Amino acid sequence: MNHELIDAEKAKVSIMDRGYVFGDGVYEVIRFYNGVLFKLEEHLERFKRSVHGIEIDYEFDMDLLKSEMDYLIKKSGYKSGYIYAQMTRGVGKRDHVYIDKELSEPQYIVYVVKEEERPLEIMEKGIRVLLTEDIRWLRCDIKSLNLLGSVIAKNDAVKRGAKEAVLHRNGYITEGSATNVFVVKEGVLYTHPANNLILNGITRLTIIDIAKELGISVVETPFIVEFFKTADEAFTSASVSEISPIKEYVEIVNNAEIIRKIGKGERGEVTRVIQEKFGEKIG
Amino acid sequence: MNHELIDAEKAKVSIMDRGYVFGDGVYEVIRFYNGVLFKLEEHLERFKRSVHGIEIDYEFDMDLLKSEMDYLIKKSGYKSGYIYAQMTRGVGKRDHVYIDKELSEPQYIVYVVKEEERPLEIMEKGIRVLLTEDIRWLRCDIKSLNLLGSVIAKNDAVKRGAKEAVLHRNGYITEGSATNVFVVKEGVLYTHPANNLILNGITRLTIIDIAKELGISVVETPFIVEFFKTADEAFTSASVSEISPIKEYVEIVNNAEIIRKIGKGERGEVTRVIQEKFGEKIG
Repeated sequence: MNHELIDAEKAKVSIMDRGYVFGDGVYEVIRFYNGVLFKLEEHLERFKRSVHGIEIDYEFDMDLLKSEMDYLIKKSGYKSGYIYAQMTRGVGKRDHVYIDKELSEPQYIVYVVKEEERPLEIMEKGIRVLLTEDIRWLRCDIKSLNLLGSVIAKNDAVKRGAKEAVLHRNGYITEGSATNVFVVKEGVLYTHPANNLILNGITRLTIIDIAKELGISVVETPFIVEFFKTADEAFTSASVSEISPIKEYVEIVNNAEIIRKIGKGERGEVTRVIQEKFGEKIG
Repeated sequence: MNHELIDAEKAKVSIMDRGYVFGDGVYEVIRFYNGVLFKLEEHLERFKRSVHGIEIDYEFDMDLLKSEMDYLIKKSGYKSGYIYAQMTRGVGKRDHVYIDKELSEPQYIVYVVKEEERPLEIMEKGIRVLLTEDIRWLRCDIKSLNLLGSVIAKNDAVKRGAKEAVLHRNGYITEGSATNVFVVKEGVLYTHPANNLILNGITRLTIIDIAKELGISVVETPFIVEFFKTADEAFTSASVSEISPIKEYVEIVNNAEIIRKIGKGERGEVTRVIQEKFGEKIG
């Protein structure tokens, strides 16, 4: 925390930290395998875009961030896991206005390193998702700490025996509560375009690259809920959970819980080959 | 903090507090005048609705909260000011899912007492507002800590020499970044209905009561931006800033800053009589 090594359980911030009172900050989650951070450059570039996207005035020293993260991983002794990094605007009198206000300098930067194996079983067996409305704000392209919309959606999913929520706004599938969403239809891969309504996942971008390498057409376009329901295959993507086949969805219609399969209700072939290629990339 | 008196500058929370990583909490701001909390019951009821609205499992002991707040005001010695109260879901391993997870018990409850005089000058002279898009989530009826949309709007306003942002969604005025918005047209008072798109302010409700007492018709309906621009009078309302006449608005059209008056560009008569009655109520 702020360039000091400290036990996460003991690390504390001021109640005047704008992260605590406004969610006024951003974060990043970076996977590592065999002690090596995966797609680190891309994650740090996105972190920088998020930080500057909300006008936090912080000059990025990429080499410093990298060396601190590497140090943390070595210190942890974990082989496989992820680093959570967070930066808030700093500490100051509670006031929406930050322009020309005195704030702590530098802003808090906090990393937490966690051990986490690859989710091999889920990658094969797939998950159930809840189809639910996207109630989040209109700047989902910023990886901000304003996550209550996602928290509510994910917990609603868990209540329905699902692992993730797949969100739709005005009838179009956007993404998951903490994942991007892909569907396969007649051999073509579809996903929502990277605009203000979704977070442009690094895993999402990696999958698009993989599809191109494999000669699979990728169409980045909004698609309606019905298109999702009638897909041949579907999966979610994220740095920690990687690629999870969606085997079925649940939705609530007139207070009734309706559960239906996506395609054959099991991992599809396109999903499998993309996972395989992804596995090769992470080495 | 958690029933202990502590200097706000020194009060700290864990970096694992869900308020810090997800904005997973709610808050309340309660005005006091001459040491007496104004509309306390209403604020505490709303606090409870917010807390339970995001499924924080906390049993409210209203008498305890009241006595703690009263104690804090007496201790502060402030005559006029406000209490900021915040509650988060608690401290736990970072995971969107809170169902069946171990979280700290009880959740953090934090109050901060601040000194603040009535804004008499602004109440007379009025403010400029920025007209800008409402990018917030679709549960603005919950007074949550996910305030980045409001923070961005308010800072955009300040950049344009305005004091507040007036937000519109799909062409309809919703509310301000931290206030409700009213307009007066031909003697009738209009404001957005209290649905999921606005926070139902206690001051908003007080103003509606006052209008009824004064025989002023109140219409709770969404109205378009043009209706706002051509209003005879407009004002914002909030617990701390009370009733601020909107004398002019600024908007950005094709990168140009356009500034126009609302009505005569000064506090209107309906606004003034409502302010007067409000002043009587706070004693």
